[in-house]
Amino acid sequence: MNQIVPTPPQGAPAAVPSVTTGPLPASSKVYIPGTLHPEIRVPQREIAVHPSAGEPPVTVYDASGPYTDPAVTIDISAGLAPIRQGWISARADCEPYAARAVQPADNGFANGAQLVPGFPVQRAPLRARDGKAVTQLAYARAGIITAEMEYVAIRENLGRAAAAAGSRDGEDFGAAIPDFVTPEFVCQEIASGRAIIPANINHPELEPMIIGRNFSVKINANMGTSAVTSSMAEEVDKMVWSIRWGADTVMDLSTGRNIHNTREWILRNAPVPIGTVPLYQALEKVGGIAEDLTWEIYRDTLIEQAEQGVDYFTIHAGVRLHYIPLTVNRVTGIVSRGGSIMAKWCLHHHRESFLYENFAEICDIMRAYDVSFSLGDGLRPGSIADANDAAQFAELETLGELTQIAWAKDCQVMIEGPGHVAMHKIKANMDKQLATCGEAPFYTLGPLTTDIAPGYDHITSAIGAAMIGWFGTAMLCYVTPKEHLGLPDRADVKTGVITYKIAAHAADLAKGLPGAQARDDALSRARFEFRWEDQFNLSLDPETARDFHDQTLPKEAHKTAHFCSMCGPKFCSMRISHDIRAEAQKDGMAAMAEKFRETGKLYVPTADGTA
Amino acid sequence: MNQIVPTPPQGAPAAVPSVTTGPLPASSKVYIPGTLHPEIRVPQREIAVHPSAGEPPVTVYDASGPYTDPAVTIDISAGLAPIRQGWISARADCEPYAARAVQPADNGFANGAQLVPGFPVQRAPLRARDGKAVTQLAYARAGIITAEMEYVAIRENLGRAAAAAGSRDGEDFGAAIPDFVTPEFVCQEIASGRAIIPANINHPELEPMIIGRNFSVKINANMGTSAVTSSMAEEVDKMVWSIRWGADTVMDLSTGRNIHNTREWILRNAPVPIGTVPLYQALEKVGGIAEDLTWEIYRDTLIEQAEQGVDYFTIHAGVRLHYIPLTVNRVTGIVSRGGSIMAKWCLHHHRESFLYENFAEICDIMRAYDVSFSLGDGLRPGSIADANDAAQFAELETLGELTQIAWAKDCQVMIEGPGHVAMHKIKANMDKQLATCGEAPFYTLGPLTTDIAPGYDHITSAIGAAMIGWFGTAMLCYVTPKEHLGLPDRADVKTGVITYKIAAHAADLAKGLPGAQARDDALSRARFEFRWEDQFNLSLDPETARDFHDQTLPKEAHKTAHFCSMCGPKFCSMRISHDIRAEAQKDGMAAMAEKFRETGKLYVPTADGTA
Repeated sequence: MNQIVPTPPQGAPAAVPSVTTGPLPASSKVYIPGTLHPEIRVPQREIAVHPSAGEPPVTVYDASGPYTDPAVTIDISAGLAPIRQGWISARADCEPYAARAVQPADNGFANGAQLVPGFPVQRAPLRARDGKAVTQLAYARAGIITAEMEYVAIRENLGRAAAAAGSRDGEDFGAAIPDFVTPEFVCQEIASGRAIIPANINHPELEPMIIGRNFSVKINANMGTSAVTSSMAEEVDKMVWSIRWGADTVMDLSTGRNIHNTREWILRNAPVPIGTVPLYQALEKVGGIAEDLTWEIYRDTLIEQAEQGVDYFTIHAGVRLHYIPLTVNRVTGIVSRGGSIMAKWCLHHHRESFLYENFAEICDIMRAYDVSFSLGDGLRPGSIADANDAAQFAELETLGELTQIAWAKDCQVMIEGPGHVAMHKIKANMDKQLATCGEAPFYTLGPLTTDIAPGYDHITSAIGAAMIGWFGTAMLCYVTPKEHLGLPDRADVKTGVITYKIAAHAADLAKGLPGAQARDDALSRARFEFRWEDQFNLSLDPETARDFHDQTLPKEAHKTAHFCSMCGPKFCSMRISHDIRAEAQKDGMAAMAEKFRETGKLYVPTADGTA
Repeated sequence: MNQIVPTPPQGAPAAVPSVTTGPLPASSKVYIPGTLHPEIRVPQREIAVHPSAGEPPVTVYDASGPYTDPAVTIDISAGLAPIRQGWISARADCEPYAARAVQPADNGFANGAQLVPGFPVQRAPLRARDGKAVTQLAYARAGIITAEMEYVAIRENLGRAAAAAGSRDGEDFGAAIPDFVTPEFVCQEIASGRAIIPANINHPELEPMIIGRNFSVKINANMGTSAVTSSMAEEVDKMVWSIRWGADTVMDLSTGRNIHNTREWILRNAPVPIGTVPLYQALEKVGGIAEDLTWEIYRDTLIEQAEQGVDYFTIHAGVRLHYIPLTVNRVTGIVSRGGSIMAKWCLHHHRESFLYENFAEICDIMRAYDVSFSLGDGLRPGSIADANDAAQFAELETLGELTQIAWAKDCQVMIEGPGHVAMHKIKANMDKQLATCGEAPFYTLGPLTTDIAPGYDHITSAIGAAMIGWFGTAMLCYVTPKEHLGLPDRADVKTGVITYKIAAHAADLAKGLPGAQARDDALSRARFEFRWEDQFNLSLDPETARDFHDQTLPKEAHKTAHFCSMCGPKFCSMRISHDIRAEAQKDGMAAMAEKFRETGKLYVPTADGTA
């Protein structure tokens, strides 16, 4: 693992980010080429196990981008290779144009040493020609299988062979998960609105991914500066750190100054989709006075961010004026930043939300760049007491209505969800969202299943996230230990990502996603055979697993020991299990086991002698 | 928080444990007297909030014992006050007798400096007179409401008034949770076998607690030395530390040397039930050679431990000879220490389990002291692949059979459960256990919902534990971050306990347990009103919450700030929510909200103008 510190561009302050690079242990980056689109190269990670296992490497999904490819030289000041450029230009339906000029307000009027340097490389932004829609949805409806669609199909299969359909072990509540993902299936899922590939034509560095109920559950990591703390360098580092551990998308929720330039550095170096909440930057442009927001400033911000390449916008167009009274008796009011800002604006002006009223024009902008909607849950419940209340579901109804409008304009859509919801109310959220929003992908924040554990809300929410992922939610927005208390630092980001990888994978297993259990099985075999290094390397966080083991058994010899410090050599049940198997083989136990299974319960005396 | 280091007793080595004492922040210990039994004093914890809130203190369940009572002087060498002594002697159905002499084998032949000193205070053990059963079950069946039963009834109500039955918000899958817990209800639940009060007559220091589906979900913390690491002093400290954070019972799973003396120090200082797996000590007595175990050695160990006051025994009497072949093709074999030991013994001797064959006599021993059964899940699945397999459910059937035998002898019984189980298979475990074991309380280890995250198995299992607790499991055995990797240290114990308090409380909320939501509501109100100290103090881990907040906002003034570093002053949604409410009050929003609710959807134009 290397820390790369690139040479700063001339004239800029020396605050160029350093990021973490290098593969995870025992891991190789493998690229799978396309067939319909031979130029695509789809990354996967292969984790090798000890030769004594006699097993092939385990293939796992890899969101970490070129940073873990030892063959790639990382230069943060140059950005990642624009791998999509050829695919986009081959479609010949968009054109470069002179970008909107960056205004001082875009960076919160920062200047001098406080101004984050502009990104050294500038490209002219692309925009659709002739009023076309350049969205994956438009292509899918036209029956066109794009390079992005084939890319994600290959990505989802993780090298599984087409024919390898076993019996399905799971409960997917009526989802339609295929044994093997074809580009055609991806195309249908996009066309139906059940899935999205967030992929702005101005984000050519993106390694495309798909968000949808019939694919693996994805996770998002939130980051971004606030007025109180953090910096562009830290945020770029956090972005690379978060995808190293498995974040599938990243949201830049920066507030404060330097929002524009910070975002540019992130985007040019991001192999994952980047989401934002444009309202934050719009609010900074009016000095933090919500009442001073205008549609014109907001519209301009959408274009500014679309030109940079933001892949999805969270837009709280469902916070309507007449819903706001429904929050007045809540325990925690409105907990969404965007939702509270819009509510304040609406009340002050006593007018309908300008996001709602101008929604059609927002669609027109987004379809010209393929920015996906993440329809915001501004009225989500921020406490157990507020869950599933009238405010929350009124907004959901509106999000359903807006989904249809966006789809009519060929815009890709996902729907944001809660929040704080006790376990017995979670399924109703999923069912309602499916029914109300035409099966558009659901993207929830947790939900947290109790309020009583600030400091541990990654855990309170992992419970709800795993469950709602199982029920059909397509992407889970992580929560870190700092939730409710402060801005997450680097360590919090990692903890949040690992926790949400757990939730997403638990959901995949429960849904019976083909191939999901392969990693669990490989790790459990390694555990059972005391291949300690393999157990660590196959886990979500090899460093921590190894470190925890080594705290009590640090010597190299311990890595092949048939025990650990939990039980010691005499009491290790796995070691004893091996003894049992050796004994069993002598006795022909396998045959006994078969016979038992055939005959059912053996006629053996019960302890009280009655049978 | 004080660290008390008692003066070592004369002649003993100076390894007397130091433990953590003193109340948690803003907390008072309150004792509620009995009515039927006026001599009992039931502890509760009251957390005070800031006067500006205008709210009474929040009452929460308190398992921490006298260690958090500033009025009590702790002397680890003297042990806790024997609060139950009078209650037990008043029943006049047991008698003191000369204890079994402690053998060198009981402490693994440790001697000299390696021998943990004997506990300085020795009492003659009690045993039932005249072949009576002195179990809570026997009393309940006779319609006797014991002091222990009234104690737990008061404890479960947390000071709620009898009349305060609101509408129930939860899904309890057919449980029978009362609005208010009476001693009569407790008596009925015990008599039916649906609940147990683990309370050995030789553990007079115990603050009684109840384990049952119709009461709050409880958690257990495992600890104990292993041959590789830890010590008596560390384990006593861990026990006190674990209950400080909320462990309802503690299992001493010590292996290695000094098992007897270590356990004595723990028991004499434990206000919570202590569980053990007697097979471990029996195995140490035969030098770790499972084949050399005998019924006689085991029987003697049961008596040895019952005399000391162990409140429940995990007994793997369901690992029957003819089930062992069912594990041969598993991915992780037998992962239970006790289960693997018994399997090895059975196979080697090609004989039925001596635990199973002598089960009736085990009952006779346990009924004489009121040691509860925890019928062990020796064949639980240790990997996702092995979940719900034939081995697991064959053992469960036998546990059901053994439950009836134990009940016929007036022994209290709970049933242990898995393990590693993907989410879609969890409910089936609960349903099967209810049907098979006569509704005896279920006590699960997690379950872990995926295998891929060693280092984070407190989280992989919290997901399963919360769900199975919701479905009806009565007690959840914690899992720490060290699971699969090594023996948990003090910090791991705390993390495991907090995580499992989350899971148990999330289950209580989802079940609609009356009063459970009061703490969530109080904390959320504190959060919404920026009463930061109250938010921290009401949380499960006030120190960590405060510390996380202070990492970015450490000044005293920040404790009344209407923002934190996540969003800063301009973007804090809660602050903006307050502005909204002020605005709303001016506009008569409350009336608007009411009107909206009455009329349903207002007739407002939709964004595309169609309605």
